[in-house]
Amino acid sequence: MRRLAAIVEYDGSGFSGWQHQEHANSIQREVEAALSFVAGHPVQAVCAGRTDAGVHALAQVIHFDSDAPRTTRSWVLGANTRLPATISINWAAPVADDFHARHRVHRRTYRYYLLNRSERSALLQGRVAWVHRELDAAGMQAAAQELVGEHDFSAFRSVECQSKTPVRRLERIQVSRESDRLCVEVCATGFLHHMVRNIVGTLIELSGSPDAQGRMRAILASRDRARAGPTAPACGLYFWQAEYPARYGIPLTLAPAPCLGL
Amino acid sequence: MRRLAAIVEYDGSGFSGWQHQEHANSIQREVEAALSFVAGHPVQAVCAGRTDAGVHALAQVIHFDSDAPRTTRSWVLGANTRLPATISINWAAPVADDFHARHRVHRRTYRYYLLNRSERSALLQGRVAWVHRELDAAGMQAAAQELVGEHDFSAFRSVECQSKTPVRRLERIQVSRESDRLCVEVCATGFLHHMVRNIVGTLIELSGSPDAQGRMRAILASRDRARAGPTAPACGLYFWQAEYPARYGIPLTLAPAPCLGL
Repeated sequence: MRRLAAIVEYDGSGFSGWQHQEHANSIQREVEAALSFVAGHPVQAVCAGRTDAGVHALAQVIHFDSDAPRTTRSWVLGANTRLPATISINWAAPVADDFHARHRVHRRTYRYYLLNRSERSALLQGRVAWVHRELDAAGMQAAAQELVGEHDFSAFRSVECQSKTPVRRLERIQVSRESDRLCVEVCATGFLHHMVRNIVGTLIELSGSPDAQGRMRAILASRDRARAGPTAPACGLYFWQAEYPARYGIPLTLAPAPCLGL
Repeated sequence: MRRLAAIVEYDGSGFSGWQHQEHANSIQREVEAALSFVAGHPVQAVCAGRTDAGVHALAQVIHFDSDAPRTTRSWVLGANTRLPATISINWAAPVADDFHARHRVHRRTYRYYLLNRSERSALLQGRVAWVHRELDAAGMQAAAQELVGEHDFSAFRSVECQSKTPVRRLERIQVSRESDRLCVEVCATGFLHHMVRNIVGTLIELSGSPDAQGRMRAILASRDRARAGPTAPACGLYFWQAEYPARYGIPLTLAPAPCLGL
C-alpha cells in the first residue's frame, strides 16, 4: 500500500467533530467515505489533530493508505464531488511510508476568532464567538505570555482529556485585534483536550483585570480547572495548520485565511 | 409617526430574497416581524436595494415608521433577539421625516466575490462563486472600464426587469485579486435587475480573450442580452453599502468586511 497525505478544510458547524462515532455525523466518516469511493476500497484516515463538534479546520492534515492508481488531481477532485459542501480537500500527494499525520507533526497551530461589539453579526454567525463586553487585547496578550513554555496545563484541561500527561510545551500565543475582531493564535507541539478553548475563556474572563498577568500565572500554577475561566464556544476555533519535517513535503496553509477578514 | 433608519446584515443563502412574497421565506418578512415585535405594532420596512434569493448584504439600509418610545439600543438588540441567526441589525437611529431608504440613496455599492482555484472551499461555500479556470483580473479590469459612465445597459438586464428605462450611470467598477480570490466592486446610483451578476458573468466569459475590451464595448453597444455572458451565481453577490446625503446621518459600512479575507 502506498501512503498518501491530504489537506482537509471544513466548517464544523453541522458535525459531531472529526472522530468517527456510531450514529453521529463525523467529518472522519465523510472523508473516509469520499476517499473510499475514489479508491474503490475502504480507506481509513488519520488526522493531525482531532477537532470537537462545531470546531472548524482551515488545513487539517490527514494520511491514508491506498494502492489505487489515481493521480493527485483525481484524489482531490474525485473526493470533493462526494463530500458535503462544508468539507473540501484542497491538496493531496503520495508521501514517504513513515509519514504519520498525528505522530510526525512537530507543531500544531489553532486560531480562535472573537467578534467584539455590541451587535451580533449575521455573516459571521457560527464562524466566530461573540463577546459584547469590550475586550482589552493588549492586556490579554500580556496575560497570555504567562503560558509560554513547558508547563503542567491541568488548569486548562477538560475532565474528559485522555492524555497520559498534562504537560505541554506552548511555543507561541498571540492575541491581536483588527477593528471589532480579535484573533488568538496558539502554537504548540500538542494540546490537551479543550486547552485552547479553556485558555481563550480564561483570557476573556481576565480581560480588564488590573492584574491579569498575575492572575493568569496563579491559575496556571494552581493546576486547578476550577480556577480557570469557562470553555469558550466551539464555533470560534479553527485548526489552522500542522507542521511536519520538511522531508515529507506537506505544504503549510495554502492560501490566506478565507472567511475571517483578519 | 417618527421615521427610523437601520442597517441590516444578512446571509441570503436560506432566503427567497429581500422582497416579501406569499409562501416564501423573505428577509423583509423576518425584519418586519422582529421590528413589529419591538414596536408593539405592525411595522413595514423599505430597503435601499432589493436583493434576490441567495444574495447577501453587509449593510442594507432600511427605513420604517414607529411612535413606540424605544431607544436605538432597544431597536437593535430587541430586533436581534427575534431575528434568525443569519440576519442581524447592526445600527438604528431616528432620521428626518423625508428620509427614504430607496428614494434618497445617491450611490449603491455591490461587491461580487470569486474563488479562483481548482479546488472548491468548504469555509467559503455559499459565500463566493467558484471559478476553477484561471481568471485574468487585469484583463477583466480593463474590459470593465468600458462600462463606466451613462449607458443603455439592456445587454446586462434580466428579462424580468421592471425598470422604466435601461439607462444607468455606472460610476466605478474595480476588479481586484488577492491570492486565489477576486473581488468586483461596482458603484452606481442604481442598477437594473441582475445587472451586477450579468456584468460579472460577462467578465468571466471575456477573461483571457485577446480583445476583451473591444468585445465588452460591442456587447454594451448591442443592447442585446443574448450577446452578454451568463448570470453569475447569487452566492457571490453582496449588497455592500448605500450612500445618502450627509444630513441624514446614515453611517457607511460600520466595520471591515467580515467573512471574506479580502
